[in-house]
Amino acid sequence: MNTIRREGIGVTESVECADDLYPTRSVTTSVPFRRHDPVVWSDGDDAARGPLSAEEVAAYDRDGFLAFDALLDPAEVDECRREMRRMATDAALRSSGRVVAEPDSDDIRSVFEVHRHSAVFERVVHSGRLADRARQVLGSDVYLHQSRINYKAAFDGSKFGWHSDFETWHSEDGMPAPRALSFSVALTDNLPFNGPLMIIPGSQRTFVPSVGRTPPGYHKLSLLGKNLPAGPADRTAVAALAERHGIRQFTGAAGSAVMFDCNCLHASGGNVSPFPRTNLFVVYNSVDNRLTRPYAAPEARPQYLADRTFTPVPRAEDRPSR
Amino acid sequence: MNTIRREGIGVTESVECADDLYPTRSVTTSVPFRRHDPVVWSDGDDAARGPLSAEEVAAYDRDGFLAFDALLDPAEVDECRREMRRMATDAALRSSGRVVAEPDSDDIRSVFEVHRHSAVFERVVHSGRLADRARQVLGSDVYLHQSRINYKAAFDGSKFGWHSDFETWHSEDGMPAPRALSFSVALTDNLPFNGPLMIIPGSQRTFVPSVGRTPPGYHKLSLLGKNLPAGPADRTAVAALAERHGIRQFTGAAGSAVMFDCNCLHASGGNVSPFPRTNLFVVYNSVDNRLTRPYAAPEARPQYLADRTFTPVPRAEDRPSR
Repeated sequence: MNTIRREGIGVTESVECADDLYPTRSVTTSVPFRRHDPVVWSDGDDAARGPLSAEEVAAYDRDGFLAFDALLDPAEVDECRREMRRMATDAALRSSGRVVAEPDSDDIRSVFEVHRHSAVFERVVHSGRLADRARQVLGSDVYLHQSRINYKAAFDGSKFGWHSDFETWHSEDGMPAPRALSFSVALTDNLPFNGPLMIIPGSQRTFVPSVGRTPPGYHKLSLLGKNLPAGPADRTAVAALAERHGIRQFTGAAGSAVMFDCNCLHASGGNVSPFPRTNLFVVYNSVDNRLTRPYAAPEARPQYLADRTFTPVPRAEDRPSR
Repeated sequence: MNTIRREGIGVTESVECADDLYPTRSVTTSVPFRRHDPVVWSDGDDAARGPLSAEEVAAYDRDGFLAFDALLDPAEVDECRREMRRMATDAALRSSGRVVAEPDSDDIRSVFEVHRHSAVFERVVHSGRLADRARQVLGSDVYLHQSRINYKAAFDGSKFGWHSDFETWHSEDGMPAPRALSFSVALTDNLPFNGPLMIIPGSQRTFVPSVGRTPPGYHKLSLLGKNLPAGPADRTAVAALAERHGIRQFTGAAGSAVMFDCNCLHASGGNVSPFPRTNLFVVYNSVDNRLTRPYAAPEARPQYLADRTFTPVPRAEDRPSR
């Protein structure tokens, strides 16, 4: 057992925990505390080795995110959109649990593990435009922890409440440290009013524990986003962080992207507009941050939600030329 | 019976109707058609008489709305906010039906007829800053058709789907023509992500009939905004108009306001942010456009939703000096 000093907002306490630096879903208090780990894991020459400028790396360290105007070009976007339409109607995928429908309709909400079921998406997630940036910030080789397409239907698209992805991946997937990051790539225009991604800048430095225990089979429920007993961030903490740091809402044309730290508090509103919104979501984890047993769940989630093959994304120099 | 030529989007049809230029909720088709009436009802010298410039009047005519940065000053906003907090907890108001709670919680969604239950709000709705602009555009004296405060709670504030207010006021209140307009006055900051008002510019020129009949006692249900059988605009029409004209989302500091035609298609998203949103909503109708019997409802709505005293708002020159 270790004793960890947790510096909360106006509170400092010491808690006992079994080698768990980020206790959540099983603690009696939900006091937010300062992250124990770096945001940028590379340093010195390593931090400069990659497509990101020193200014971009510093901004990522400070804010927890970077936005890019045109990470994919229009031809790639078109190809991805054709592919996502194909996958949404793929009967084998639907019956495998990888396609999640909206709770109140037959509309698609998410399709998981798209990089294993589509050569198009495999190419995108292996692209240096994403993977080299991830390696530069995480300071190591990386593997695909998760990939998915998030659909947000016109008129009725539902919201995602405030949460840290790392809180879920730590609890339910056994991810030891926040040494992972995500790309959210717009496959349709992300407008101010069709439920775009919102992040509280700087929130990646604070870990906000969630209350409530994880019930068995929880991922089937939690992916629908309704009445969650565990996972959502404490609202008092969210309000305090948003009051201090504000909220950044990301809009951009199809092909634009946001790269963000796994512990950023983020959310997205519903979509009441007639314009549907679709994003590709890609998560890279450091090969030095392999999953163990879940820290706060009775069982690990399926492979398509949390990859346990840990195969490094090949670097450009290792890839066969086409 | 009259025969009206209805020019829809790609369709022209003739329908029989009993002196009803805007048939809705009882017609077999829901083909949108061109508005029969003007948007700006004054002309010549009259249109120039008032606080709005010729350019502003022309923009209102074209878009259906005008936005103002600081219609109320900070001291007035503070006074309104104190007053709205008082009214939300007023037991007599709550038991009178004028306070509407959210369907899934005890949070307040709306308080109606605020100008009759508060000297503060009466002063605001009688102010020349609102009423003179309304008179200038509507080309006559005006009276208060409705006033209300709309609350949108933090985290869980619910959406309002796309609709034309005139469609409801015509159907359920017997308002003959679209010779009315609303002010939505921000009493808290309206941010891109706390469910601000959205309007489809130019949509005031198209009447989009609603399908479904009005059941008895419908206002008690419709104010909650859930699963409405009548009132919401046809989604195909909304999508077509938004595709052609785009969507304008209104953000602004507390004290800012939007003045918009009663037939504008408008909506607002839910609020997933930690920042609640509160707006004062004030509707002026022309004294020459008095309510008759409802055009498409079994009975008229209560006084606090649709005033039938038709008392003109006093002009500055008629008001006693204080």
